[in-house]
Amino acid sequence: MKRNIYLNKLSLNEARVKLSKALLQIKSNLPLQGELVSTVDSFSRVTAESIFAKTSSPHFQSAAMDGIAVKAENTFGASESSPVKLEKNKDFYYVNTGNPIPKDFNAVIMIEDINQFESKRSLKQNQKTSISNSKTGSEFDKVEIYSAAFPGQHIRNIGEDIVANQLIIPINHKIRPVDIGGLLAGGIVKLLVRKKPYISIIPTGDELIKPGEELLPGKIVEYNSKIIENMISEWGGKSSICKVVRDNPVDLANAIRNAVKISDIVVILAGSSAGSKDYTSKTIGELGEILVHGVTIMPGKPTILGMVEKVPVIGLPGYPVSMFISAEQFIKPLIFQKIGISLDERRKIKVSMAQKLFSRLGNEEFLRVKLGEINKKIMAFPLPRGAGVINSLIDADAFVRIPSHKEGLQYREEVDAELMNDFKKIKDNIIVTGSHDLILDVLNHELHKKLSGHNLVSFNVGSMGGLSALKLGKTHLATAHLLDPESGEYNFPYIRRILPDMKIKVINLAYREQGIFVKKGNPKNIKNIEDLIKKEINFVNRQKGSGTRILLDYLLKAKGYNPSKIKGYYREEYTHLMVASSVAEGNSDAGLGILSAAKAFHLDFIPVARERYDIILVSQFYSNQKMQEILKVICSDDFRKRISDLGGYDLSLSGKEIKDESINR
Amino acid sequence: MKRNIYLNKLSLNEARVKLSKALLQIKSNLPLQGELVSTVDSFSRVTAESIFAKTSSPHFQSAAMDGIAVKAENTFGASESSPVKLEKNKDFYYVNTGNPIPKDFNAVIMIEDINQFESKRSLKQNQKTSISNSKTGSEFDKVEIYSAAFPGQHIRNIGEDIVANQLIIPINHKIRPVDIGGLLAGGIVKLLVRKKPYISIIPTGDELIKPGEELLPGKIVEYNSKIIENMISEWGGKSSICKVVRDNPVDLANAIRNAVKISDIVVILAGSSAGSKDYTSKTIGELGEILVHGVTIMPGKPTILGMVEKVPVIGLPGYPVSMFISAEQFIKPLIFQKIGISLDERRKIKVSMAQKLFSRLGNEEFLRVKLGEINKKIMAFPLPRGAGVINSLIDADAFVRIPSHKEGLQYREEVDAELMNDFKKIKDNIIVTGSHDLILDVLNHELHKKLSGHNLVSFNVGSMGGLSALKLGKTHLATAHLLDPESGEYNFPYIRRILPDMKIKVINLAYREQGIFVKKGNPKNIKNIEDLIKKEINFVNRQKGSGTRILLDYLLKAKGYNPSKIKGYYREEYTHLMVASSVAEGNSDAGLGILSAAKAFHLDFIPVARERYDIILVSQFYSNQKMQEILKVICSDDFRKRISDLGGYDLSLSGKEIKDESINR
Repeated sequence: MKRNIYLNKLSLNEARVKLSKALLQIKSNLPLQGELVSTVDSFSRVTAESIFAKTSSPHFQSAAMDGIAVKAENTFGASESSPVKLEKNKDFYYVNTGNPIPKDFNAVIMIEDINQFESKRSLKQNQKTSISNSKTGSEFDKVEIYSAAFPGQHIRNIGEDIVANQLIIPINHKIRPVDIGGLLAGGIVKLLVRKKPYISIIPTGDELIKPGEELLPGKIVEYNSKIIENMISEWGGKSSICKVVRDNPVDLANAIRNAVKISDIVVILAGSSAGSKDYTSKTIGELGEILVHGVTIMPGKPTILGMVEKVPVIGLPGYPVSMFISAEQFIKPLIFQKIGISLDERRKIKVSMAQKLFSRLGNEEFLRVKLGEINKKIMAFPLPRGAGVINSLIDADAFVRIPSHKEGLQYREEVDAELMNDFKKIKDNIIVTGSHDLILDVLNHELHKKLSGHNLVSFNVGSMGGLSALKLGKTHLATAHLLDPESGEYNFPYIRRILPDMKIKVINLAYREQGIFVKKGNPKNIKNIEDLIKKEINFVNRQKGSGTRILLDYLLKAKGYNPSKIKGYYREEYTHLMVASSVAEGNSDAGLGILSAAKAFHLDFIPVARERYDIILVSQFYSNQKMQEILKVICSDDFRKRISDLGGYDLSLSGKEIKDESINR
Repeated sequence: MKRNIYLNKLSLNEARVKLSKALLQIKSNLPLQGELVSTVDSFSRVTAESIFAKTSSPHFQSAAMDGIAVKAENTFGASESSPVKLEKNKDFYYVNTGNPIPKDFNAVIMIEDINQFESKRSLKQNQKTSISNSKTGSEFDKVEIYSAAFPGQHIRNIGEDIVANQLIIPINHKIRPVDIGGLLAGGIVKLLVRKKPYISIIPTGDELIKPGEELLPGKIVEYNSKIIENMISEWGGKSSICKVVRDNPVDLANAIRNAVKISDIVVILAGSSAGSKDYTSKTIGELGEILVHGVTIMPGKPTILGMVEKVPVIGLPGYPVSMFISAEQFIKPLIFQKIGISLDERRKIKVSMAQKLFSRLGNEEFLRVKLGEINKKIMAFPLPRGAGVINSLIDADAFVRIPSHKEGLQYREEVDAELMNDFKKIKDNIIVTGSHDLILDVLNHELHKKLSGHNLVSFNVGSMGGLSALKLGKTHLATAHLLDPESGEYNFPYIRRILPDMKIKVINLAYREQGIFVKKGNPKNIKNIEDLIKKEINFVNRQKGSGTRILLDYLLKAKGYNPSKIKGYYREEYTHLMVASSVAEGNSDAGLGILSAAKAFHLDFIPVARERYDIILVSQFYSNQKMQEILKVICSDDFRKRISDLGGYDLSLSGKEIKDESINR
């Protein structure tokens, strides 16, 4: 069998138009029929008819205030100097808010505005006949009033809220809690709402296993169906996930044939690219018609739009980010069309790119970005761009779309961001750039635990990268543990060199232990840093500019070795956890990093240095509420407890300012 | 029993602080405990712990592209002029995206970048051993490549997406569909989420009946519990509605005692004002403690905050708008606190008040407004301010808060609006001001049916009001049927007088019949307009400035009568439906209005005039998309069909421009 080729790659818009036209032809673009439901069960359903009130609300004239019902005519002329006296059950009746107004009475005077006379006789009477006509249980049978009431005063008219036959809720409206109240008030106890579109989800692939099953190489946990299932439910559809179809065109054809019989839409997961096992396109083509195979969006390119037995059959790409984007672009509009509501849009704001990046011409890229407000500007930080990185969706605050005719975005270029999170949340993000430590995760945990609203966003670009981000004004905080080989001093020599003109504060986060990660039992018997070279160890390094790499170079040079002689010196990972993972997986024999990461992966650890790990910030940011929240957390018992559980940290100076002593020298 | 008095009315903020402090004291401010749920069932739940990955994803090195896995070293030096030849299953393996990379291989070359040689032998072999090692089913066993691969090229590393032990999702995070994917990718199949707070809702009141029960005077359909039930579910809580408690303090006390035993929060509906039957405050006070009785917000004043057996017991006002506002201010924060998420905020935008209004000093008013974009400005139109008008919530696009120290808002004053609807929806609103007709409801129905995104917002202020709104630039369209007694001409004489300097277009909507509404069978035997005076009929009029009132005056004057002699001339209603309702309910014997309203209420109708009902707009608005959408609807068959069902309309000129013939005279 030959590999497929994308024959007719279309732009997003072309693809959507082509699908729309095909739906229009077979009248599959119309909303689904209605079904009758009880008003009380109609929350979040969509009206399939415009709803007109059956009854008025209120349906009788009633008091709008607690007080007495009177005939306005009887009160004319009342004043402070010549009050009008009224008698109970003759000139007036006590009424509570909502009580009906007695016939021929036409005004209500508020209880606060009348003077009541006590009457023992009437008190006794009331006790005997506990259910009085007005049911007010009031003790007074004479009142005085000091100003005239006007006809209609404090009276709720019939239909004041809703008048019979008026439109309460139009067709194609998604019902909210208040709408249910309005419908019931208008006498509507049942109404026609759209049937929920039914979507069959067919996962495909030999490699798929269920969550919780054993993770053998080549096997992948099938979670895409769970994402799309919940997206569909959010959009107002209902779905069922079919049995996984293995890579076999006969089984796939059967699954599609069965699904189109009972579904409004069929979604096939994966098998939509041009790989040799991707039968989806061919199979849809054989059973019906392929409208689109390949869309010039990134991620999301290998999308298939087809039609089988007048049912749209959509092949979504296998990578989770591709699937998400493609589903939003193609499945969501189909569902909205079938339930009869117009597409919503994400809120758009202008943001400034925190870094330059290239994009492939001819593709519209959906870049996921994290946003942060720095110096009153919202900056956009690109997240990993791989279609397989689901984390980039979890972390994303917004999409930035790079049009297909652009080759990329410039540093500080102003672009539209389509928000996926509340703007308030975004403004509360705290951007931390620099050296990675597990402490940052704990810090973030504690910020969230306190419901401070703040979220720590850390970009692990190494200590040098942190300082340079601070210099460019594109981070709130930098983290660093930069050892100066000459002076043995941490961070300050670098700060003086890189940020010479800035007022800077340095706050210690922790002292921590660095050491060599080796497999449990230390099979290669590594004793010290020299052994990395002497024993020709298969090493995994950290990236250039990271404090850990600088430490490695320093330690080896101090012993007279050339660090680049280490086997694997140029294999780079960006975090301590990635280095530990590489050793744990057996892809390397050793790496350098912090104790907490070694412990997390149950590795042995050969200590080589104790170092200072600091937060570095522009002085004026110190008083900012974000920084103050961080300091509160750092000084809290909960934080310190969790850090000490991680192991390898000394918090004695944590949260304290470290002064650059050279300045007073 | 004496009426209650609000002893300690507090501001919104004071009340919230007082509640918070009380909760803090009994540690009832903490989030609820967690419960273990399957990840696949965790959608929209809130994490009760920070979730760290158990496994890495991917958990093996895999191909990031469809193509061949190679050893990078073997490809060095490849070029167009000297391609490198590779042999299958020795120098390379076919791999599809996601396949594991064979041991010691370290790069992938995309299928598009290689040249494959056919080989009959291998083709046959493949057919025999249908399950090949690489499972690619490819037919070629030799390939040529033209450029070198670098180590790691197109390879997904272990942990590229998620590395074991990294934070996937922090504590106090509401789980979205993509989060479920991320959790499963990180090996998390179960997790701790917050229990849902359980809220008991106790409706109270002798007057309450169930939806669908007979509407006797004084009886009210109990729908508040259905609103609050769904609001609670939206907020992430669960609730049950208790049996209605009649106005009896013993029953209420029992209901509260039972509810606090099993609930995290108890909500009592109504009975919270100072009416004589409002036992709520007294009863809470006897069972526990009253913290607040009365909050200086409007609507929402009669709110009670109390505490019984360490459970917050909240008395919500009986009017639906008061209940809604009070619930948002007091119940929502409690629920969010208990599930552990921070309060969200409505998006705020600046809007310009479309009219001046007064507000009571000392109360913070939550004004409901409709918004519309007119001349690139968002204008805010106050909706009915009564606490009983649930329609004002259904229709509202936003709240405008009028602070307690302000006596009102100025015309065109710029204020903050807290959006309840999508901004896009708001911008699509079409504002129509002027004369009321049932046609407008049909027009709105058809706009919604088309999913045009547009919503017709009509303010029934009468024909003259429509022209003046047009003059002030605070409406998109005006509707009018203004008869000039002198010329017998419609609308133009008024336009010439009121809008002399504006370029105006007049589009006919319909010709329609006006007549006298009388009860079925015409019991008072009214034959013509004079009978209204001659027979001393109990009349209900339309408001000043309405075309219908002008018509009434004209008709009577033409017969030599003084219209103000009609009994009830000064009783005003604002719509045809309200006039018809008044006659139908027996509150008046006759009114003047359009046939469709009479038909809606099954009234008899004595025709008195045929008149022209027009849309009037600024000429340049004619080409606006909003107007074009309206014209499309007006000219559609569906619209015309529905209007002819209403009865009494002639659509022969509908949608056509009417020219002011005097201009060419």
